[in-house]
Amino acid sequence: MLPVPVMEQIQREWLDYQGMGVSIVEISHRAPEFVAVLEEAQRLFRELSGLPDNYRILFVHGGARMQFSALPLNFAGRVPARQALYVETGNFAKLAAKEAEKFCPVQTIASSAATNYDCIPALEAGSIDPAAAYLHITSNNTIYGTRWNRFPDSGAVPLIADMTSELLSRVIDYHQFGVVYAGLQKNLGPSGMAMVIVRDDLLDYADPQTPTLLDYTQCAKDNSLTNTTNTFAVYVIKLVLEWLTQQGGVAAMEKVNEQKAARLYQVIDGSDFYCGVAQTEHRSIMNVSFKCPSSELDGKFLAGAEANGLYALKGHRNVGGIRASIYNPMPLDGVEKLAGFMEDFAQKNA
Amino acid sequence: MLPVPVMEQIQREWLDYQGMGVSIVEISHRAPEFVAVLEEAQRLFRELSGLPDNYRILFVHGGARMQFSALPLNFAGRVPARQALYVETGNFAKLAAKEAEKFCPVQTIASSAATNYDCIPALEAGSIDPAAAYLHITSNNTIYGTRWNRFPDSGAVPLIADMTSELLSRVIDYHQFGVVYAGLQKNLGPSGMAMVIVRDDLLDYADPQTPTLLDYTQCAKDNSLTNTTNTFAVYVIKLVLEWLTQQGGVAAMEKVNEQKAARLYQVIDGSDFYCGVAQTEHRSIMNVSFKCPSSELDGKFLAGAEANGLYALKGHRNVGGIRASIYNPMPLDGVEKLAGFMEDFAQKNA
Repeated sequence: MLPVPVMEQIQREWLDYQGMGVSIVEISHRAPEFVAVLEEAQRLFRELSGLPDNYRILFVHGGARMQFSALPLNFAGRVPARQALYVETGNFAKLAAKEAEKFCPVQTIASSAATNYDCIPALEAGSIDPAAAYLHITSNNTIYGTRWNRFPDSGAVPLIADMTSELLSRVIDYHQFGVVYAGLQKNLGPSGMAMVIVRDDLLDYADPQTPTLLDYTQCAKDNSLTNTTNTFAVYVIKLVLEWLTQQGGVAAMEKVNEQKAARLYQVIDGSDFYCGVAQTEHRSIMNVSFKCPSSELDGKFLAGAEANGLYALKGHRNVGGIRASIYNPMPLDGVEKLAGFMEDFAQKNA
Repeated sequence: MLPVPVMEQIQREWLDYQGMGVSIVEISHRAPEFVAVLEEAQRLFRELSGLPDNYRILFVHGGARMQFSALPLNFAGRVPARQALYVETGNFAKLAAKEAEKFCPVQTIASSAATNYDCIPALEAGSIDPAAAYLHITSNNTIYGTRWNRFPDSGAVPLIADMTSELLSRVIDYHQFGVVYAGLQKNLGPSGMAMVIVRDDLLDYADPQTPTLLDYTQCAKDNSLTNTTNTFAVYVIKLVLEWLTQQGGVAAMEKVNEQKAARLYQVIDGSDFYCGVAQTEHRSIMNVSFKCPSSELDGKFLAGAEANGLYALKGHRNVGGIRASIYNPMPLDGVEKLAGFMEDFAQKNA
């Protein structure tokens, strides 16, 4: 889901971008008009996020999943042992570690698999080997509805976070991270592209066998224009960042996101009918996962929701039940409508 | 440039795809409505191209350039020597070979570099080592305006062709090829994605260190949905393929493309003023490169053309002069307008 004003602007200027007589998708990625879009997206992101100057903003092909390969290729070589540390908090965290194993030794230092990822596991003292190349976490876990409320202190080991499902949804101190990356399709734009935020000093360690377009150092040198980029995605990101700015920025957005999540958790916690999937202290404000008393009632809930115009609520097959994804573009009244349906459904089926 | 009817359809259904109340870019890549788009694009491509049944059609991230890395990763392991053969017919052909060198031994068996790529070099008898993993060519060279009119017979060595700038612009017998690939942004869609056509028997040879999203075998298994694909690009491709079908298919399109190119070459050959860049027998019908008698006149030509609404005609810096890119969506009357300007300019400046 993208913000309605953004979608309307795309439609309005689709056939004639700024009086050029052609669409934004028809101009070259090297045209000054497109480069201006890319640089404005970078400027807006830096302004909105409060990103320090020593971090580069890259636009790369292929979503977060492509970065699962790019991370070890770019950063394992930073230390002699080439070892990377991963925390397993769900399906994507696990996939990230598995992909890294192709390229370097991987150690999973904590996992919540035993409780089907209903929490963020505590890191044991001493579990972060200071000689490791990096520590990877998934900051928000869409399937299970958990998030890292506070990020681990990894000392001199660069912390790398997959923020696909929450980038720019809450205020973050980027100094804590070496690398932050996100597929764009949740909060920021269309599918098929990722943003990668890299601290300067972590560049220049790419493996010689890194495919050129997965090499962040090359990408930084070429300001994301090593080859023809996904111009449409960059254009949409810029519009979404303008919209975010108009909404008052990330702090204001976070406040609304907290209200949205609180409204749903309030219904869950206030009823004997619904049961939340995530442990309370690890709850996500982007994905609210819960269950009815039986899988039959889950099915009835989903059918009833669809009949009321509430779509895409089916929980992931790894968890079952219901999942409400309430990313930035989802307005408060959409959440209010869902909360009302939940209350009504519980009353009628208790 | 994309066909006008396609652009208008995108605009028309932008906010409400087929009565779903949301945009095509807002639905999941696993939604039946999107999978139907992807499968229809594959069906249309197969029908339009006459592609045999034993070839798979893949949609992959990152344009043709990403495939420069993926080709050796997927196919070098097919033979013990892992050696790949390349023919150097221009800038992109050279980049493809250079990228492959990261992953396997590469031999450039022919090159037209000595004459600044003004022709397709002849392959010497015996130059194709039958023990090689594959032979790579660039079928149409955008910068220099050359193309392979007839493709080399590589015997048992699979022939791989980068057709980025001419896929579906002329009738091709795909039996000649092991792999055909193309970035989409010239003839088929927006930037950021490529199509890869692979013969079945060439799958299953990927290097264990192939990034998952560059692994064609995995992509074929998952029907291009290993991760969230670039849904917008797939949607646009489908519309372009529908448009191509309405135009009468590839044979009809080729006829128009030949007329368009012939009209420009006729002006060049009929004047003492213009000089074509490519040798006559290797001329492209997609990119027509030529020069005025001096670089000053080239500059004057480009300025005059822009004043007449004729844009994007500047030759690549490796060649200079003028380049008219006349891909499928460019109508005959656009070419007629350019030809008229060329004749007029030559007359006034001879």
